[in-house]
Amino acid sequence: MISHEFYMNIAIQNAKATKGQTDPNPLVGCVIVNDNRIVGIGTHLKAGGPHAEIHALNMAGELAKGSTAYVTLEPCSHHGRTGPCAEALVRAEVSKVVIATLDPNPLVAGRGVSILKNAGIEVEVGICEEASRQMNEVFNHFITVKKPFVILKSAITLDGKIATASSHSKWITSEDARKDVHQLRHETGAILVGVQTVIEDNPSLTTRLEGGRNPIRIVLDSKLRTPLDAKVVTDKQAPTWIFTTSNYDDRKRKSLEEQGVKVFVTSGEKHVNLSQMLEIVGEHSVSSLLIEGGGQVNASFIEQQLINKLELYVAPKIAGGEDAPTFVEGKGAEKMSDALEFEHVTVTQLGRDYKFSAYPIYE
Amino acid sequence: MISHEFYMNIAIQNAKATKGQTDPNPLVGCVIVNDNRIVGIGTHLKAGGPHAEIHALNMAGELAKGSTAYVTLEPCSHHGRTGPCAEALVRAEVSKVVIATLDPNPLVAGRGVSILKNAGIEVEVGICEEASRQMNEVFNHFITVKKPFVILKSAITLDGKIATASSHSKWITSEDARKDVHQLRHETGAILVGVQTVIEDNPSLTTRLEGGRNPIRIVLDSKLRTPLDAKVVTDKQAPTWIFTTSNYDDRKRKSLEEQGVKVFVTSGEKHVNLSQMLEIVGEHSVSSLLIEGGGQVNASFIEQQLINKLELYVAPKIAGGEDAPTFVEGKGAEKMSDALEFEHVTVTQLGRDYKFSAYPIYE
Amino acid sequence: MISHEFYMNIAIQNAKATKGQTDPNPLVGCVIVNDNRIVGIGTHLKAGGPHAEIHALNMAGELAKGSTAYVTLEPCSHHGRTGPCAEALVRAEVSKVVIATLDPNPLVAGRGVSILKNAGIEVEVGICEEASRQMNEVFNHFITVKKPFVILKSAITLDGKIATASSHSKWITSEDARKDVHQLRHETGAILVGVQTVIEDNPSLTTRLEGGRNPIRIVLDSKLRTPLDAKVVTDKQAPTWIFTTSNYDDRKRKSLEEQGVKVFVTSGEKHVNLSQMLEIVGEHSVSSLLIEGGGQVNASFIEQQLINKLELYVAPKIAGGEDAPTFVEGKGAEKMSDALEFEHVTVTQLGRDYKFSAYPIYE
Amino acid sequence: MISHEFYMNIAIQNAKATKGQTDPNPLVGCVIVNDNRIVGIGTHLKAGGPHAEIHALNMAGELAKGSTAYVTLEPCSHHGRTGPCAEALVRAEVSKVVIATLDPNPLVAGRGVSILKNAGIEVEVGICEEASRQMNEVFNHFITVKKPFVILKSAITLDGKIATASSHSKWITSEDARKDVHQLRHETGAILVGVQTVIEDNPSLTTRLEGGRNPIRIVLDSKLRTPLDAKVVTDKQAPTWIFTTSNYDDRKRKSLEEQGVKVFVTSGEKHVNLSQMLEIVGEHSVSSLLIEGGGQVNASFIEQQLINKLELYVAPKIAGGEDAPTFVEGKGAEKMSDALEFEHVTVTQLGRDYKFSAYPIYE
Ligand SMILES: [Zn+2]
Ligand SMILES: [Zn+2]
Ligand SMILES: [Zn+2]
Ligand SMILES: [Zn+2]
Repeated sequence: MISHEFYMNIAIQNAKATKGQTDPNPLVGCVIVNDNRIVGIGTHLKAGGPHAEIHALNMAGELAKGSTAYVTLEPCSHHGRTGPCAEALVRAEVSKVVIATLDPNPLVAGRGVSILKNAGIEVEVGICEEASRQMNEVFNHFITVKKPFVILKSAITLDGKIATASSHSKWITSEDARKDVHQLRHETGAILVGVQTVIEDNPSLTTRLEGGRNPIRIVLDSKLRTPLDAKVVTDKQAPTWIFTTSNYDDRKRKSLEEQGVKVFVTSGEKHVNLSQMLEIVGEHSVSSLLIEGGGQVNASFIEQQLINKLELYVAPKIAGGEDAPTFVEGKGAEKMSDALEFEHVTVTQLGRDYKFSAYPIYE
Repeated sequence: MISHEFYMNIAIQNAKATKGQTDPNPLVGCVIVNDNRIVGIGTHLKAGGPHAEIHALNMAGELAKGSTAYVTLEPCSHHGRTGPCAEALVRAEVSKVVIATLDPNPLVAGRGVSILKNAGIEVEVGICEEASRQMNEVFNHFITVKKPFVILKSAITLDGKIATASSHSKWITSEDARKDVHQLRHETGAILVGVQTVIEDNPSLTTRLEGGRNPIRIVLDSKLRTPLDAKVVTDKQAPTWIFTTSNYDDRKRKSLEEQGVKVFVTSGEKHVNLSQMLEIVGEHSVSSLLIEGGGQVNASFIEQQLINKLELYVAPKIAGGEDAPTFVEGKGAEKMSDALEFEHVTVTQLGRDYKFSAYPIYE
Repeated sequence: MISHEFYMNIAIQNAKATKGQTDPNPLVGCVIVNDNRIVGIGTHLKAGGPHAEIHALNMAGELAKGSTAYVTLEPCSHHGRTGPCAEALVRAEVSKVVIATLDPNPLVAGRGVSILKNAGIEVEVGICEEASRQMNEVFNHFITVKKPFVILKSAITLDGKIATASSHSKWITSEDARKDVHQLRHETGAILVGVQTVIEDNPSLTTRLEGGRNPIRIVLDSKLRTPLDAKVVTDKQAPTWIFTTSNYDDRKRKSLEEQGVKVFVTSGEKHVNLSQMLEIVGEHSVSSLLIEGGGQVNASFIEQQLINKLELYVAPKIAGGEDAPTFVEGKGAEKMSDALEFEHVTVTQLGRDYKFSAYPIYE
Repeated sequence: MISHEFYMNIAIQNAKATKGQTDPNPLVGCVIVNDNRIVGIGTHLKAGGPHAEIHALNMAGELAKGSTAYVTLEPCSHHGRTGPCAEALVRAEVSKVVIATLDPNPLVAGRGVSILKNAGIEVEVGICEEASRQMNEVFNHFITVKKPFVILKSAITLDGKIATASSHSKWITSEDARKDVHQLRHETGAILVGVQTVIEDNPSLTTRLEGGRNPIRIVLDSKLRTPLDAKVVTDKQAPTWIFTTSNYDDRKRKSLEEQGVKVFVTSGEKHVNLSQMLEIVGEHSVSSLLIEGGGQVNASFIEQQLINKLELYVAPKIAGGEDAPTFVEGKGAEKMSDALEFEHVTVTQLGRDYKFSAYPIYE
């Protein structure tokens, strides 16, 4: 206690508590300590709202003077709605700022620290760095490449199937696992499926969790085959964006747009250009994307090395079936040594099912 | 200590130590205790050799008189090579016999106990029962149905593939997992593959483990297509048995038999009759069978509800490929609710891979 | 997530982070959630400062309207410096209040809830109740009986000795344990020793921890024998209170008081009246008292059933010695069955030493 | 599996199972492995009986030829009742011997290995060495110094008391702890108390455990004050040995001896010469001694650095009492830094009590 780590952990825990509500901003927490007493705590609650430091400084009031501020991310240096936090800390006359991680945005990394140091404030960087970085894996990716962090999610049988040969897929996993999926949706900015899934399953793609937030629904649809009476078109539960190719039918586009659907045309001819799609999604400030595609869609993302994380729900059952689809189809690897490998694997039991979380290794 | 469980655990641990060497007999251990001193320990070491009780009585000598014998399995009542152990215990004038589990063979269960009780010996049954039953899951199955305990083993990618579309399969799992597979082979009486595997991969199917025992090699070969120069035919590392149908070619059969291969003809026409095959294997006193088939062979066993345990090695990689084979092909389940479910699942990490061990639920 | 427990745990963690700085007030945390987003977090930081609810409502602003407030303790109903929080929640138009524990003060318990309910706010009590109660064991005791929560702390050898026969006591425990003791001092309102300890050891009784708070120093001194040059008199590191009896010398009292020492006279003749002492300490709003007495002082507290918790540091060493003092002397129990028993024992390793934490069982 | 460690562990587990029954011999286990099958297991069961190797060789029979023998202790080279085991292994034509630890007796260490090597047998030493050494800590001590391994056992309150001021001591610890003490007695060759304990408590000092073995009872009695009607004299439950000084009364000695008590006279005048006592006990092949003395007796052993292990049962209660005896009295350490320190401390919960097991550090 009374260690830097103690206070930084409070800041991290508060930041983590807001997971899913700060998009496209990162999770950030702040604790202000004066004379060994906590005098302010703050957390960034919502994009557009005050940053963590501002909340904490408000709570601290006069006691911020001479204090040590613990911030999970480098205080910002830009003039946003709540101004540069680095300058706010300077104005509040804090004596020291302890930072978990520098700004992941290479364009501005270090600027906040400079402002603080130039004002004569002592700065220490790197306390609880790994924990802070991990909680913002989505944001760190987004801010660096301006494209969403792509999570490939699938629910499979032990033999890799996502449906039987006759396309039955309900239900592979049990309730606990499905609830976890809805938590994932709740935490993610957008969810993506192929048009084939819309046609065959007519899913709503919403978060069935009390108080869950619905992600933006994205459909890959090279020829605008999405039915006008599909739930994603009609139910108005969340925005629906369709990405298509130059092969689209203009009247269908108009009909969809009349229903409030956004249609984006990418440069692909036969297939939607996925990279371009990700760029567009990124431009709309959506920092995370959950792929819930069929085997072909999933394969496209994997072949183009576009996924950043895998969340695979495995049910202890065997469906069998030469013609039953697996969760990654496509052409596949030529040799087994070409298969995409994963690292940082964790296996979690969810009721009777298991979840593999892992990160792909691209060379 | 000095509890029944204490001594029975010693007996169980010694019995377990002989895993893989008592086939087709069960693992059995015995501890004899007189006046709170262990005076004899014994374990069944090899089919045809003395039973655990005999070894322990030998060690105890005169001290067996008035002692308590702890045996993990009901002492036998039949006149085998080492005579009925129940009678040996009576002759040794033990005072009490503590037994973990009754004989699983319904024909003789309880007979050993009767002999003991009739001789005025106190008998207590059920100490450490579950542990004893589990260590002999193979034997208990075999002695009850006279067919081998069938273990389906496969090594797959996260997407259920056992090879790429172009049939590359080396290596899916890493060394730790492959070593574990060889341990499985070492502990199993026979190993089974389809002829397609023999033709394509020409495997030796031996146990590559220092001092490992090789299982009998069984090939399902409906038309006797096994090449005469296949390793399983020529290397003489272990017996090779080929199961075929009436469709076989007699000259090929003779050539194979000249090489020492045993050929069994089942009643199947297009496919080997698997039930009949298991009966024949059982008649040859082989109590366990490891299926290392391709997707079609595995599917046949699953469809006919013939497997008793699953040992699935999962590598954290994705091969992809619409045409890449999964570990269970065939027709598959009609609906997802028809998929074969598993229970008593355990997940073990082996190096970077994972092993799922589980038991099928047949209704 | 998105469960009551999730949000209450955030509130509890923030409250715990202020351990030691809210005296004589309890640790209280508050989280405000609107439409499944955290919109405010608050923690009571200091007696006299805003309560947790006020901080959280400030952060929430307009978003408090229609929200659910999670509070670890029943919102207050009294008009203190920051007004009744129950009314503040009503004014902010929250829809629901989830409470971990009711106010432990029997005089006001339930009043806050009544105010909320009368205003039509839904109230739920008992979420994470045990965790909230435990974190305020000191406060709950204090508010109920108006006397400090008494912790008996001692550092002993395996044979119960606190010094050798020749009174050497440095050091029994190693650095890790001693640091833990200073953490205890940091978290406690006052520390008590007998005058004999002051005379023999001349301790400063301060918290030697960077940024540690010093407790008020209390000396039991029936005849005002405290030396005028004792550190607790001269060093001004923390207030020093001496409790004496009617047997005191008036000139000595004046000399002590001139040095800033407070002298309290209790009704005892030979010994300070401990119950009265605790009442007086409680009247000064000190809610916790750490007894670091010798064997006689400790024995007095135990005989009078005045301690509420034991914190015993045990070093793995044997001092021996018929005349070496143990940590509880006095007359002692008549029969072994009269010994004071303890429950809820936890044993923690601290470096090479061990800490027993336990609660006495008074019948 | 199939590793040296696997087989050695079987040997160690069998050896440990005979704890308490091999005195004064060590615990030794043996496993013989031929062609990766266990063909023999053996354990030394009783002093005077066959050594572990002999039992295992008997079980192995012809299969010992060409085998690997795993022995937890270096095979003996001396011509005892069952002859040198090293030579028996040579005669059995084993190919390799794997040994956990060399003989702890410096006079013969390495001789067994030499015999084996001279016969062309491969020898490997050090597999599972620490586990084997620890299980024979008693024997290793005894064989090296020819005196028993001395365990100081006491049951105390948190304040180190073994009785109240009025000498009530029943019961300090609860049933679980007392049962553990009886297990200790069961495993130990002799138990020692002072005559004061005999006079005041008249204990039987037997093992109240079903089937427990009673240790030899030793009384330190400088003036032969042991009452003739004391249980240890009259009950004949176990041998009783009284150690006295030249100050003894000859008639009393005769009376005691008539009752079957052995009386040993040591060179001490006021106090029994403890070193001499230990030598005599050692000469009688008693390898372990449990001290259950009062504070004075315990102090004598500690002051003379004669204890090898501490087994301290601590009840979570406080007896208090300036005059209540602690478990180590005597003169005690002069300075706290002179206190006897302990290492390899383990703390075990036994019901509501705690057991500290530790080893003294003599410099
Ligand atoms: Zn900012
Ligand atoms: Zn038998
Ligand atoms: Zn309030
Ligand atoms: Zn020997």
